[in-house]
Order: sequence, then C-alpha cells, then structure tokens
Amino acid sequence: MNSALLTDLYQLTMAYGYWKKQMAETEAVFHLFYRRAPFGGHACIVAGTSPAVDYISELKFTTNELEYLGTLTGADGKALFDQGFLDYLRDMEWKLDVSIIQEGELVFPNEPIMRIQGPLIQCQIVETALLNIVNFQTLIATKSARICAAADGDPVLEFGLRRAQGPDGGLSASRAAYIGGSTATSNVLAGMKFGIPVKGTHAHSWVMSFDTEQQAFEAYTEAMPNNVVLLVDTYDTLDGVRNAIETGKKLRQQGHELLGIRLDSGDLAELSKGARNLLDEAGFQNTKIIASNDLDEYAITKLKKNGARIDTWGIGTKLVTAFDQPALGGVYKLGAIRDKNGEWQARVKLSNDLIKVSNPGILQIARHKDDDGHIVEDIIFDETLGLSNEGTNTEILLTTAIQKGIKVLQEESLHSVRERAITHWQNIKHTPPTLITLDPRVEQAKRDLLTQNGFAP
Amino acid sequence: MNSALLTDLYQLTMAYGYWKKQMAETEAVFHLFYRRAPFGGHACIVAGTSPAVDYISELKFTTNELEYLGTLTGADGKALFDQGFLDYLRDMEWKLDVSIIQEGELVFPNEPIMRIQGPLIQCQIVETALLNIVNFQTLIATKSARICAAADGDPVLEFGLRRAQGPDGGLSASRAAYIGGSTATSNVLAGMKFGIPVKGTHAHSWVMSFDTEQQAFEAYTEAMPNNVVLLVDTYDTLDGVRNAIETGKKLRQQGHELLGIRLDSGDLAELSKGARNLLDEAGFQNTKIIASNDLDEYAITKLKKNGARIDTWGIGTKLVTAFDQPALGGVYKLGAIRDKNGEWQARVKLSNDLIKVSNPGILQIARHKDDDGHIVEDIIFDETLGLSNEGTNTEILLTTAIQKGIKVLQEESLHSVRERAITHWQNIKHTPPTLITLDPRVEQAKRDLLTQNGFAP
Repeated sequence: MNSALLTDLYQLTMAYGYWKKQMAETEAVFHLFYRRAPFGGHACIVAGTSPAVDYISELKFTTNELEYLGTLTGADGKALFDQGFLDYLRDMEWKLDVSIIQEGELVFPNEPIMRIQGPLIQCQIVETALLNIVNFQTLIATKSARICAAADGDPVLEFGLRRAQGPDGGLSASRAAYIGGSTATSNVLAGMKFGIPVKGTHAHSWVMSFDTEQQAFEAYTEAMPNNVVLLVDTYDTLDGVRNAIETGKKLRQQGHELLGIRLDSGDLAELSKGARNLLDEAGFQNTKIIASNDLDEYAITKLKKNGARIDTWGIGTKLVTAFDQPALGGVYKLGAIRDKNGEWQARVKLSNDLIKVSNPGILQIARHKDDDGHIVEDIIFDETLGLSNEGTNTEILLTTAIQKGIKVLQEESLHSVRERAITHWQNIKHTPPTLITLDPRVEQAKRDLLTQNGFAP
Repeated sequence: MNSALLTDLYQLTMAYGYWKKQMAETEAVFHLFYRRAPFGGHACIVAGTSPAVDYISELKFTTNELEYLGTLTGADGKALFDQGFLDYLRDMEWKLDVSIIQEGELVFPNEPIMRIQGPLIQCQIVETALLNIVNFQTLIATKSARICAAADGDPVLEFGLRRAQGPDGGLSASRAAYIGGSTATSNVLAGMKFGIPVKGTHAHSWVMSFDTEQQAFEAYTEAMPNNVVLLVDTYDTLDGVRNAIETGKKLRQQGHELLGIRLDSGDLAELSKGARNLLDEAGFQNTKIIASNDLDEYAITKLKKNGARIDTWGIGTKLVTAFDQPALGGVYKLGAIRDKNGEWQARVKLSNDLIKVSNPGILQIARHKDDDGHIVEDIIFDETLGLSNEGTNTEILLTTAIQKGIKVLQEESLHSVRERAITHWQNIKHTPPTLITLDPRVEQAKRDLLTQNGFAP
C-alpha cells in the first residue's frame, strides 16, 4: 500500500505539466484541513498524521510502477508521459517539509492538520494518499471519542473488522478507534501491529457446535478458564444467563471467575437488568455484562437513560465505518507559491460558494488556553506575517515532522496518543463552538485576493 | 494484509477450544450470506469472492504471528494459548473446500455467497477475513451498479480514493466499483494492480498555480495535448468554459481535440446547459461535459430529469464508501456438522428474531431462468437432500473454488466479470423482488430444528 501510485492520475498528469513547464521545483505550500466537523459536532480528534508522515518519508517510485506509467496512453494512442519524465520521477530526491498536528490533539474546521511545503510536483503527488489516510483515521478517532464519551467511562471494545471497508479499513479503524478512546479491539492483526489490547471469547457458532448450550459453556471454560465471557443469547437469553451461572459456579471451584456474559440481541436494557438480577442473586456481582448489536453513541445514551445494567460496550459496524457519516470531507489546498523572484505569493481557492474559499499563506495555529487548560481561542495565522496578538498560554499546534524529506517526528506510543485524545475530548464540553479566528493579517490577505479576482468579500 | 491474524480474537479462542476438545478436525459447513439487500434494493452484485479465495488459499501462520499469540494472557496473567496449540497452528495443513458464487453474479438475501467446508477450526479461523472482503466489495459493486444504472449508459468515473476508508478501502473500492460497471478510476495503483483504465487531467490547484486560468489551461494543453479535459470552475464557471474554448481552438491547430470540460461545483444542471450552448456555438459539439461534486444515483437521476447536459459522471465519496449505507451486514453461519458417527447434522442459528434464523444443511442454489435469460426463481436447497423439483433452464450457482486447500478456481479477467455484472444488473428490472424460495426439504428440516429447540415456527 505504501506506493507512490496510491494517488489520483491527475496528480501525475499535473506533475508532468509542472515538469514540462519547468515549474516542478517551484516551492509551494499546501494545507490539509476539513471544512465542517462530522457527526454534527464541532471538532475532531486528529489521527493518521503519523502514518501519513511515514508514508511520505518512505516514498519512491519503483521500476515496476514507472513501467506501468509508461504504458498509459492518451486520446491519440500515444504515451501520456515522456520517458524523460519517468526518469525524473525515478531520480527525484524527495525533499518536502511537513508539519503536522500531532495525533490525539483536537482540531477545528479550517485549521491545517498538515502543512506540506516543497517542490510543487512533490506536494501534488502526495495529496491523495495524505487525504486518504488522515480523512479516515481522523473520522474514526472522532467517532470513537463520541462513543467513549457516551459510554461515560465504561470500557468500549471495538469489534468491527468483519464489516469494515476492506482489510485496511479494519486495521486503520482499529488504530484510530483506540486513539479515540476505545479500550481494546477484536482485531488480532491490529493487536500485533499496534500493541492494542485484544479481546474475544466465543461466538454463537461455538454454542451451535455442541448439543446444548450448557455443554458449550462448559467446554469453553474447560479450554480457557482464564478468559471466560459467555455469549448467552444463542437460544433464550435469560436461560443462557442461568446456564452461564451454572458454569460460573464450576469455574469458581477451579479457582477462576466468570468474567462476564455478553448480550447480542433483543431488548438490551431489559435483558441486562434481568441478567444483572440473576447474576447478583447467584453471587456473581463482579461478573460484567457486555452488550453488542449495532450500538453507537446514540444507542448507548438511550440504553443508559433506560437504566440498562451494561458494564462494557462492544461496538462494531457503526464505529469502524462511522456509519452515520462514513467520510470526512478533508481537502488539500494551495496556500502560497514562490514567484520567479523568490517571493511568496499567497493563494486562495476562490469559489462562488464562500465556505469553499480557503485561507491564504503559510499557515500556523496558535491555541490559547485558560488556567484550567481549556481552549479559549484558536488563531490561524501566517508564519511569514506573524501573529498579531501573541497573548499568553499559547501553544503552537503544527510541529515539524519531516525536514527536507527526512523524518524528524519523534515516535510516540499509541497509548500516550490515546491518553492525550481522551483528556482533550473531556475538555471539549468547555470549548465554545466558534472559537477559531483568523489573524487580522490573514483576513486582510484573503480579502485582498478576493477583491483582486473580482469577488466582493 | 494477507495475514492469518486478520481475524477476531474469538475465532482463535474458539479454535483453541475446538483443539482442546478434540473437535478441531470435526467437519463442518458454514455459509456466508446477507439477510437484507442494501440501499432499499432487493439484490447485490457479488464481488470479493475471488480475492477471498486467494486469501484462503495462501493462508498460513508465520513465526512472528505465533510468537505474538504466545504473548497474549488471560485474567490470571497466564498465557491464553498452550504452546502445543501454537505448534498445531504452525503445522496445520489447510484443507478447506470452498464454493463461491462467481463475481459479477446477482445474489439475493439469504443465498450463500460462499460455502466453506472442512475442519471446524479452519472454517472458524477464516470467518472474519471472508466477511470483511466479501461484505465490502459486494456492497461497493452493488452501489456502483445502481449508479451506473442511473447514468443509463453514460460513462461513470470512480474518483473516490481521497475519501475512501484507508488505502485498501480505496483500492478494493476501485476494483468493486469497476465490477459493478464503472468505466475507469482515478486510482493509479488500482489501474496497475487490476488493469482498470485510469483517468485524470488536472485539479483546481493547477489553475491556482498560474496567474490566470487561461495561462493554466494553455500550459496544461501544451504539456499533454492528447489528454485535455479542463476543469472550468476554479473561478467563474462559464468564463472558465469560454477560456477552455479559446484553448480548444489553439489545440485544434496542433491536431488535437478538447476532449472535455469538467464542472465540479454549483448548479450542475444549469451550468451544463450553459456550457453545452457555449461549446456547441463555438464548434465543440464533440467535447464532453463531465460533472462531479458529491454525486450518487439519486443526484444523477435528478440532474437527468432537470435536463442536465452531462455526458460523463465523476463519482467519489458516495460510491467508494457507499455513503448512504456504508456496510453490508453479511454473516457467516454454521449449516451442518458431522456427528461422532460421521453423519451430517443440520444446524440453524435460532433466534427470537425470526429473520435471524438461518437455513440448515449443505446449501446450494438452483437458479431458474426464462427463455429471455431473466431470473424466474432461485431455490435454496440442501445438496445432501437434493432438489425437490429439478425444473428446466436451471443454473447451479455455487461453484468449487478450493478443493482440500488447493485453489481450482479459474482466473477470470476483471473485464469479463464486469460484463457479467452489467448484463445481470440490466436484467434485474425483470426480476420479481421475492423470488427466493426454500426447497421444501430444507423448509422441513428448518421447521424440525425449530420445534426440537422449543420454537414454534
């Protein structure tokens, strides 16, 4: 997947055009940002920037890839690309400067999550892959944060691999969900690759492979007595709880505990209350009730309101696909380009649709916090123009991750990224929803560019 | 990605249980199917079965993977898995029999898309990956078929990589979208890997890199005169069309043609009419109008109804994420298992929720067609019980793809898969929405199993 061809063809045809016009090496700055927060919220948890940095820092065109590009033809049946261009790609020294908001941080609409600076051709070639990686992981981390907030401290287990959008849709989703606050995943490969705790016990098919549910439960506990969470709804759910209790009693005699039962169908509020009563009466007060079946933040909130006695939430499809909004509309826009005299020229994407007008310059974000660490204001400013009002308690959000093609980003454990995300998402209730301001100098530059191009701002 | 750990942990804990209980080698049959067609339709285009077959036929546990499994612990801090089990996995000879519906075929609810037969432990280990691959690709192929049907013969270009769910979410989506009928993709890696035609010219950033739009258009056509589709909406759309016409005139003098213009914002119906008039008046009747911007089958239908003069449809997010229903709820259920005497015992997943009761047996599908090749009826039957009523014009849908672990599925070009899908989807308007029947013998077996388990069918 870490291929330079993980891109839209138009990035390469534009790259070719820049090369032909001797503009390939012209220095440019692009920003990756989203315009509207997903799920009706007003912020996102950043995720994917670190994998995106890895993608860029390992990038090269292989011989096979260049040969393939050589086979592409235009309307006249002739090659799209000159051999000279393919040789240029082969020999190209990657020298982008990349700044990112670190994973686990909060980011608001129109704030650059990544800033890419360097040869125009290189900025352009990486666009699609960066959007792909950052859009998806940021979306899922944010969904996960919302679900974990609804779970209000209860563990959230991510169970989504089977309904995810392809193998990597599952793997990236497990990673991003963990960043957003989930506790563990069922995805074993994600466990191995990312060090995420993995959880799992058995499915309905286990129960169906035995003549009775009781036999199935006992066979399971005999095999793996230190990991017993019994799925009780293959037949009648409360009968299943009773069978689980019987099995739990035998398990105790062997010095192990019935860790939990899982409910996967029916009225989870009522069944969990019934199950809790049965468990408590039988002396299994510490046995957890885990629920799954098409849950998301809305279902969790409703179940809690209805007094459900659920301790742990297993979330699949709705989390890993961000079911109610399965794409983040992140974009990648030119902010500035050097002219022939070496001067930076700010650029905006103009549009009749004002929300689509981008911010010009070489952008940076200053985040002001109050003494409790709550965000008071974010100011988007142009690094070449400076910040009009420095203020106090200011954090600068974009940090250098790649310098002239060389990765300088410090490796950080996913666990500490996750801790940051959880802390920040808890603070979001203190965050005013419209706290992003443009520095007056950027505002003025934008207005000037609009006027120059015949738009009345 | 082609890892044996691309699975839920519970598949491995169950595998361990089967191994401990000497049930690992017990022969079982599982079916992969969906219960409800997506997007309010009544069928799907099968996709992903061929990659799923490749996944199974190449499967093995690597040393690293087994070492990782050895590190997992239970509630008591002790290892989840015995070393003996890990050795068993390492040495396991994969010997599944797999039958599939071939890609590009129509499949209706509850019909097995894949049938997996063999050692219970092996059937279980592959479940998650098969669901992941087949659920997603079938979903996207179906979405693509719907969009292409709305486009009614106009070319559909898949542009979704930047908003797809991860790199593979993009790559698999490009593949599945092509199966469903799209004409080309912007995804260069998908072009190289799958032989899908790739398309692309330039973005807004190209235009923004020059002082004027006219300069940008001319620079592009000079660089790549045999691939000129100009994006005209960076500033004012109809002015952009006028600039494109000027550029088109110069291009003609060099013996090339302005292939198309692209609209990416605004009122596409009105702008396309305006653009068509300008192009026609200037003698560019053959220049195509390509539209993009958040399109799907509903938007296309509406634009066509409003008289839009759009020739080619560029579809991104809504196609590659199946935005309005981003997951197919495919499931994988035990159909039969051999008892100690070697006799097959049919199994159903029982549920208080009748739609969740699965069909028992070793299932196969007989498809009856009329003389025009339209589907009249599908009968789900049990191969061991036979088909009660043979009928005429009967196709048997599940074909053998893997025999005792060895792939026997003939390779087929994606182009011929796509042709099949297009033909079948055109026939779907002739297909009665409730044409799936259970063979009376399966019906009886199901009723017997429900009664035995205390359910009143």
